[in-house]
Amino acid sequence: MTQLTSQLTVGFIGLGIMGKPMAGHLLRAGFPVIVHSRSQPPVDALVSQGAKAAQNPAELAAQCDLTLSCLPEDETVLKVWLQSEHAVLPAMKPGSIGIDLSTVSPATARQIAADASARGISFLDAPVTGGQWGAEAGTLCMMAGGEKVAFDRALPVLGAMGKKILHVGESGMGQMLKLANQIAVSVNMLAVSEALLFAEQAGLDLKTTLDALGAGAAGSWAMENLGSRIADRNFQPGFMVKLMQKDLRLVMEAAAHQKSPLLGTALIHQLFQHLENSGEERLGIQALTLVLERLSGKPANAPEMP
Amino acid sequence: MTQLTSQLTVGFIGLGIMGKPMAGHLLRAGFPVIVHSRSQPPVDALVSQGAKAAQNPAELAAQCDLTLSCLPEDETVLKVWLQSEHAVLPAMKPGSIGIDLSTVSPATARQIAADASARGISFLDAPVTGGQWGAEAGTLCMMAGGEKVAFDRALPVLGAMGKKILHVGESGMGQMLKLANQIAVSVNMLAVSEALLFAEQAGLDLKTTLDALGAGAAGSWAMENLGSRIADRNFQPGFMVKLMQKDLRLVMEAAAHQKSPLLGTALIHQLFQHLENSGEERLGIQALTLVLERLSGKPANAPEMP
Repeated sequence: MTQLTSQLTVGFIGLGIMGKPMAGHLLRAGFPVIVHSRSQPPVDALVSQGAKAAQNPAELAAQCDLTLSCLPEDETVLKVWLQSEHAVLPAMKPGSIGIDLSTVSPATARQIAADASARGISFLDAPVTGGQWGAEAGTLCMMAGGEKVAFDRALPVLGAMGKKILHVGESGMGQMLKLANQIAVSVNMLAVSEALLFAEQAGLDLKTTLDALGAGAAGSWAMENLGSRIADRNFQPGFMVKLMQKDLRLVMEAAAHQKSPLLGTALIHQLFQHLENSGEERLGIQALTLVLERLSGKPANAPEMP
Repeated sequence: MTQLTSQLTVGFIGLGIMGKPMAGHLLRAGFPVIVHSRSQPPVDALVSQGAKAAQNPAELAAQCDLTLSCLPEDETVLKVWLQSEHAVLPAMKPGSIGIDLSTVSPATARQIAADASARGISFLDAPVTGGQWGAEAGTLCMMAGGEKVAFDRALPVLGAMGKKILHVGESGMGQMLKLANQIAVSVNMLAVSEALLFAEQAGLDLKTTLDALGAGAAGSWAMENLGSRIADRNFQPGFMVKLMQKDLRLVMEAAAHQKSPLLGTALIHQLFQHLENSGEERLGIQALTLVLERLSGKPANAPEMP
C-alpha cells in the first residue's frame, strides 16, 4: 500500500449483495471508507470493520475524494447522483471522482457524466461482471467508460475490488460493454437449454451429455456452471431471470437506438417473459429450460420457488 | 501395448482430413492397420508408415477384427456398409466389430446396427468432436452408441485416437449426442456474433470486448477461439458452414421426429442458408457475423473466399 493511495478517502453507496463485499475489500486494502445504504445492517457490519457511516449520499460525497455507488436500476442511480435532496453530484468536492458500478443504460451514464463535467467533476460508468461470488472473492471484471485520467487515478481503488479492470472508451461505453456481455450470457444460456432439452428428449443421460459437450467446441461457462444445475433440476439463482430481464430491456433499448439486429437476444427476452408472467422471475436464468420444456408440450414438474 | 490389443487387426475406411491422422495414431499405437480410401495419396502415405492397403471395403473387412469408417455423409456411409457391391457388412468375420466415426443421422446408425445384428456382428456409432486439430493431436471426444460389450472390446483402439471415450447408450445415441453438441456449437456461435456485432456498432474495440467477455459468464470455446477471428475479419474455416448445415439438417430432422422445440438452432440454420445461397458456404461458421451485418443494413466488405 503506498501512502498516496491510502490517502484517497473512498465513499461507497449501496451495500447490497454486490456492494457490501466490495466495500469490505476497500477497507482491507487500507483505504479510509465512508458508507451509506438504504438498509442499516450492512452499514453496521462495515462500521464494525472500520468504516465510517454517512447519513445520506450528499454527506458522504462531501468528505470523499472518490465516491462509488452500486445500485439496482436507472431510477435509483439518477436519484442518488442527481435528482434527490441529498444527491451526490452537487455535494462533491471539485476535482473528486464519481464512479457508478451499477448496470444501467448508457444514456443514464452519459447524462450523469455530462452533469458532472459541467461541475468540474469526473464521472466513470464502471459496471462489473462476476456476480456475488466475484464480488466476495475480489475477482470481478470492471469495464469503465469516461476520462482516461480519472480512470488512472481510480485504478488502485478499482483494483482492490476486481482482477480485470479495463478502460473501454468514453462515458457510457462501460455500460455498452456490460450489455454486450449480457447478450452473450443470454444466448449461451439458450445454447445449453436447447442442447440439453434435445438430449433429454432423445433419452440421453444429461451428466454424460455435459461431460461430452463440455470437452470441446460446445463448451462454455454456462455449460459448465449452469448445465449441471439443469441436470439436477436445480433452478435456484445464480443470476435471477428478473435481473437479466432488467438488463435485456436495456440491451433492446440500446440495440433499437443503434439499429443492431439481435435475433437471438430478442427471442430469449421474449421467452423469459413467460417466467415473469408465471411469477417465476426469481428463478435463475437456467430456468429458460422450463420455458422450452413447456413449449414442447412435455413439461416436467414445476420446481419450488426460491 | 499389451499383446492382446496388438493382435486386433484394425481396418480404416475413409482417409480424409479426419481419418488420415486417426489411422496414423493406430499405427503408432502398434495395431496392424489395413486402409482403404477413395483417394490414393493418403493411402500411399499410410502404407509408407506401415499400413497395408485393401482394394475395396469388402476386401478390407474380411481381414479385420475391427472395421472403422470416417466418411462425409449418410449416403456414403450406407453405401460403404450395406449397399454397394463391395460393402463392409457382408464381408465381415463373425464376432468382429464395426464402428462408424462419421456424423450421420441416428436413423442411419440404427439401420446399419440392425443389419449387423442380424449377421451376428456388433456395430457402434461413434461420432467425434474436436475437429481436424483434435484428430491430429489425438485429443478427440468419441461418443459411442451400441452394445457395451463391443464398446469395451473396442476401447483400446478408440483410446489410441481420442482422449475422452464415452459409451452413451444404444445404437444411434452416439449420433444423438453429436447432434446435441452441434446445437450448442451453433447457438454459442450466435452468442459471439450478436455480442460482437452489438459491441462494434456501439463503437467498442473488439479486442477489448473479447478480453472482458472471455473472463466470465459470457465466456465459451467459441468466444475464445472464433471471437478473435471475427475481430480480425478472418472468416476462413475452422469448421465450414457447409458441414455445419449438413449437421443442422440432421438436427432438425431428429428434432422434428422427437418433437423438440429448437428455436435458436432453427433460426441459425435459416441464417446460414444465406451463406449457402451466396456461394459462401465454404467460409467458417464465424461467418454468421456476416449474415447479421448484412441483415443490419450496415455491411462491412465481403471477405475473400477460401
